[in-house]
Amino acid sequence: MSAELRITLAGAERVVAAGTTAGDALQADGRSVIAARVNGEPRDLAAPLADGDAVEPIEVSSDEGRAIVRHSTAHVMAQAVQELFPEARLGIGPPVDNGFYYDFDVAQPFHPDDLKRVEKRMREIVKQGQLFSRRAVTDDEAREELAGEPYKLELIGLKGGGADAEESVEVGEGQLTIYDNLDPKSGELCWKDLCRGPHVPSTRSIPAFKLMRTGGAYWRGSEKNPQLQRIYGTAWESRDKQDEYLKLLEEAEKRDHRKLGAELDLFSFPPELGSGLPVFHPKGGIIRKEMEDYMRRRQGEAGYEFVNTPHITKSQLFETSGHLPWYAEDMFPPFELEGVEYRVKPMNCPMHNLIFRARGRSYRELPLRLCEFGSVYRYEKSGVVHGLTRVRGMTQDDSHIYCTREQMGGELKSLLAFVLSVLRDFGLSEFYLELSTRDESEKFIGDPADWDEATEALRQAAEESGLELVHDPGGAAFYGPKISVQAKDAIGRTWQLSTIQLDLNQPRRFELEYQAADGSRQTPVMIHRALFGSIERFLGVLTEHYAGAFPPWLAPVQVVGIPIADAHAPYLQDVAKRLRERGIRVEVDTADDRMQKKIRNAQKSKVPFMLLAGDDDIANGAVSFRYRSGEQKNGVPVDQAISEIVDAVERRTQV
Amino acid sequence: MSAELRITLAGAERVVAAGTTAGDALQADGRSVIAARVNGEPRDLAAPLADGDAVEPIEVSSDEGRAIVRHSTAHVMAQAVQELFPEARLGIGPPVDNGFYYDFDVAQPFHPDDLKRVEKRMREIVKQGQLFSRRAVTDDEAREELAGEPYKLELIGLKGGGADAEESVEVGEGQLTIYDNLDPKSGELCWKDLCRGPHVPSTRSIPAFKLMRTGGAYWRGSEKNPQLQRIYGTAWESRDKQDEYLKLLEEAEKRDHRKLGAELDLFSFPPELGSGLPVFHPKGGIIRKEMEDYMRRRQGEAGYEFVNTPHITKSQLFETSGHLPWYAEDMFPPFELEGVEYRVKPMNCPMHNLIFRARGRSYRELPLRLCEFGSVYRYEKSGVVHGLTRVRGMTQDDSHIYCTREQMGGELKSLLAFVLSVLRDFGLSEFYLELSTRDESEKFIGDPADWDEATEALRQAAEESGLELVHDPGGAAFYGPKISVQAKDAIGRTWQLSTIQLDLNQPRRFELEYQAADGSRQTPVMIHRALFGSIERFLGVLTEHYAGAFPPWLAPVQVVGIPIADAHAPYLQDVAKRLRERGIRVEVDTADDRMQKKIRNAQKSKVPFMLLAGDDDIANGAVSFRYRSGEQKNGVPVDQAISEIVDAVERRTQV
Repeated sequence: MSAELRITLAGAERVVAAGTTAGDALQADGRSVIAARVNGEPRDLAAPLADGDAVEPIEVSSDEGRAIVRHSTAHVMAQAVQELFPEARLGIGPPVDNGFYYDFDVAQPFHPDDLKRVEKRMREIVKQGQLFSRRAVTDDEAREELAGEPYKLELIGLKGGGADAEESVEVGEGQLTIYDNLDPKSGELCWKDLCRGPHVPSTRSIPAFKLMRTGGAYWRGSEKNPQLQRIYGTAWESRDKQDEYLKLLEEAEKRDHRKLGAELDLFSFPPELGSGLPVFHPKGGIIRKEMEDYMRRRQGEAGYEFVNTPHITKSQLFETSGHLPWYAEDMFPPFELEGVEYRVKPMNCPMHNLIFRARGRSYRELPLRLCEFGSVYRYEKSGVVHGLTRVRGMTQDDSHIYCTREQMGGELKSLLAFVLSVLRDFGLSEFYLELSTRDESEKFIGDPADWDEATEALRQAAEESGLELVHDPGGAAFYGPKISVQAKDAIGRTWQLSTIQLDLNQPRRFELEYQAADGSRQTPVMIHRALFGSIERFLGVLTEHYAGAFPPWLAPVQVVGIPIADAHAPYLQDVAKRLRERGIRVEVDTADDRMQKKIRNAQKSKVPFMLLAGDDDIANGAVSFRYRSGEQKNGVPVDQAISEIVDAVERRTQV
Repeated sequence: MSAELRITLAGAERVVAAGTTAGDALQADGRSVIAARVNGEPRDLAAPLADGDAVEPIEVSSDEGRAIVRHSTAHVMAQAVQELFPEARLGIGPPVDNGFYYDFDVAQPFHPDDLKRVEKRMREIVKQGQLFSRRAVTDDEAREELAGEPYKLELIGLKGGGADAEESVEVGEGQLTIYDNLDPKSGELCWKDLCRGPHVPSTRSIPAFKLMRTGGAYWRGSEKNPQLQRIYGTAWESRDKQDEYLKLLEEAEKRDHRKLGAELDLFSFPPELGSGLPVFHPKGGIIRKEMEDYMRRRQGEAGYEFVNTPHITKSQLFETSGHLPWYAEDMFPPFELEGVEYRVKPMNCPMHNLIFRARGRSYRELPLRLCEFGSVYRYEKSGVVHGLTRVRGMTQDDSHIYCTREQMGGELKSLLAFVLSVLRDFGLSEFYLELSTRDESEKFIGDPADWDEATEALRQAAEESGLELVHDPGGAAFYGPKISVQAKDAIGRTWQLSTIQLDLNQPRRFELEYQAADGSRQTPVMIHRALFGSIERFLGVLTEHYAGAFPPWLAPVQVVGIPIADAHAPYLQDVAKRLRERGIRVEVDTADDRMQKKIRNAQKSKVPFMLLAGDDDIANGAVSFRYRSGEQKNGVPVDQAISEIVDAVERRTQV
């Protein structure tokens, strides 16, 4: 064995002594750099290097770095739990978005006070600076060491197959490893866990963490297995970052559309109907109607043609489309009528194909852009259903565009421009695009040359938009590549909204064809497009984006008239009448409350404009014009107030 | 036995000799008067009178008279069939709307040529003037005489129970009777049939008849029974009336919305989806959208609030509403999800009730008028499904109005006025109303005083409309009285469209309540209202009413530009652009066809306006303005043509 190693350090060649660890080479302090990437693979700083290795630092403030901190914090939590609850058996404990969790088999659910005790013990462990120490073991050794942990034993049996992404945090592939937590002074073993790693070098390398909440979770996600108790936590590269995140959470909670939906009387989720099946109350109905009317107009102008299809069909249709073999478990179960199996539809496309096929088509008719507010039903698992953003019944602003291959590129470009222009009218302005392409290792349908052409057309359309383009290789469905539009909301969260998907599958399965200019029969290109995604989900996102303070054109009540005293009500009724004639949704608050209470009520209902009137106003043909912000302009002539309101609605101002 | 009888003849007392028949008393000629009503019951003219009988004539031109003529013609047809096809066994042969049928068990279906032979033989029988002669028989005698007619034997067994309305034409109740057809000269028996009668006196009393078509029909309507061959015919009080009817049929066939729907590319019924589940093509989609937009606007102006509810729900909801016990067989079968039974909804009302109940309600909010284009699914038997007018999936323009008892009367009046005003905008102008009231002999829900009040409120609203009001005693559903609007179409057929129904049931079952002005909790009155009925059905009716020539505001394509030569196309494209800017749906026909062909095509597509342009037109900034009627105005300045078109659309002219 040579005494020297040639390595590549952050791109530069270096010679180091044999026995040098990744951490040595990187001169890592275990604070800003908490792990290494060796030949592309994440490793502990303590990992010894071999000749020819390429080493790069993993910063605590990178996505990868944060995930390692979170994973290590999960270990610390599990250690604390087992110290305080020795009978607790371990499930799995992976990092997740913004944090981590660990599942435990315990006799009874954790109490909030338990969490406080666990968190206190964790802080002690962190302060102690226990070392994370990796050690390879054979499967048999692992089984012996973890004989008291039945769930871990089960995972060992699953190694290399059956374990899902989160579970494989423990077992990985190839040789098993155990991480020991060692006392930094005595070197004594404090705790250990089956884990593929890597981890931070010491518990002191965990900059900031907090336990969040508990919940039940079935072992391996199946209702047939025992229910474990899950503790969620968050961990960050700094206290500041963590505070920022907690503030965002608090802000998100205030904006929670389920809470606002109830407070503003927009929608509800009656248990009588079933999970994931919302109803829209009159005020939510106004917003829906505005959204629909707007889309009807925009789509009409953009050359879309409205069609209409039923919500149930013989199941056979989804055999023809190819959905049933791939998608059955996301569909509602069938029912039988006159000996034939029917289903509620999970998507509209096969029915639009039947309309395309209802008669012969000529190239002159293409692009044919069929659109529909189509309600579809999908069986989302009950744990996943969430307010309006994950429902079981949704209305898609669905469109299917049939065009020639030559038209495809131009169509995609104008489609993307159309999509972005619509989203901007709804107050969303920050976007990036994701381009999902085929997975070479998986089966896909159709000619690779067709895929390449379609992908290139999507890429070009995306580039022309000038937006950031994130590649998602292998993310496409088996039937064609896709662009999805990701939009940032007012507090910086990203939502996947519109999707534009090429389909190389259905036109063939439905034997769609058109007569080309040369008289030949050709298969059209098919593009799926949902712009809002679904009206329900989009309305949920908008509610959170606007925190319920919808811009004037969407607000269920646009103006409230508030008389300073009862005597001033008739004057405001007149103003209201004039506003109504201009199509404005206006109410005059004639309740018995005092003026200040009425202003508070209007503010609580997030009404964009308040018009106040007293004696002086009446004498001058004016109103006091008050905004949602609290700003107030006195003595505004009524005509001017009316035009300002009408103008704000017509121009779709965002205030 | 007295030699004299005191009878009442058409209201006047008379004394006649014993043995006088109804026909004698009425001095009936068997032409204009073909039967009698004795003590309210229809009888043969040959029926002998008893002391105290009240006798009235049945005119051949009355509904009852026509039904008797049709029934007698069915006998003549059966006689002719059995003479020509001695192996034919008899099913039943009742009169129906506009005609009659008779079912036969024959080895093979009738050929059109067979019908000609049957009709020829019938004319001979009619000419011969065979006498209808009634004779009472015991059940056993009937069985012996009809030993060769197995279906008749089965009916005898069903007497007094099991037979439906059409079957009981044969057996009736009490004593069985057989009608013999006798040779007028020899008195010889020509043919006989089990029948309760009455009949015309002689086959010569049948003024006009015609055989129409054949079809298969299961014995007693059940697929489990043998299939018989049914021959349909029509019969009338005069040749003129029959010709009128045949002309109407011909006209109706031309207007058949299923045929026009395909020709005009409006909608289709893909077998892939299932029976009664239409899809709307782009051109049908335009009409739907216009209908919906119009209704959205009108309802918005009339104070309706838009809500939205899903298409599936836990079945339990319809237990709560009370629909499942009464209505289950008209619903689609259930499916099971997570151990709970779900169904596609057959009506929207229970979901609207949940919205009403979503929070506390005050009297200040009433009337609360919830409306929705709600798609519902009903299991119509496959024999009943018909185009768009009887579907399994339909979109109701459904509304539920919750109001106080004091508001009920005013609300019903304005509702009826609203309904009629909307229907008039769709070119319907002749209406009558039907008021369905409770069946005293059946169970109904609620306090009779409530029914009386509700019925009186409906009656007053109906009377105030000034329309003819037809009473339908006993026609109400168990839960409340109803007004339905019957509209006459362009060829005089009546369609039941809008319904306004009081509901005394659901508000209680859903425990709906509001806080009254005095602070007490009250149950609101609930009114169901569907105006179009369903969009599908209404569109079907409109298609037939307009014979596909929709008025400008509804026409899928409103204007076609037709260049006299290719060189004139750009000029018309400019005109088209200006029309489009005014919201007009316009196409310029730039196909390779000659002008005359293009005019024919536009006429075939029933486009309201054609704009033609040649050199002179261009020189003068004019167009030739051609109407669907064929009328043409030359040299119309473009501006004038545009305003005429825009005006016709905006004013909803019917031309």
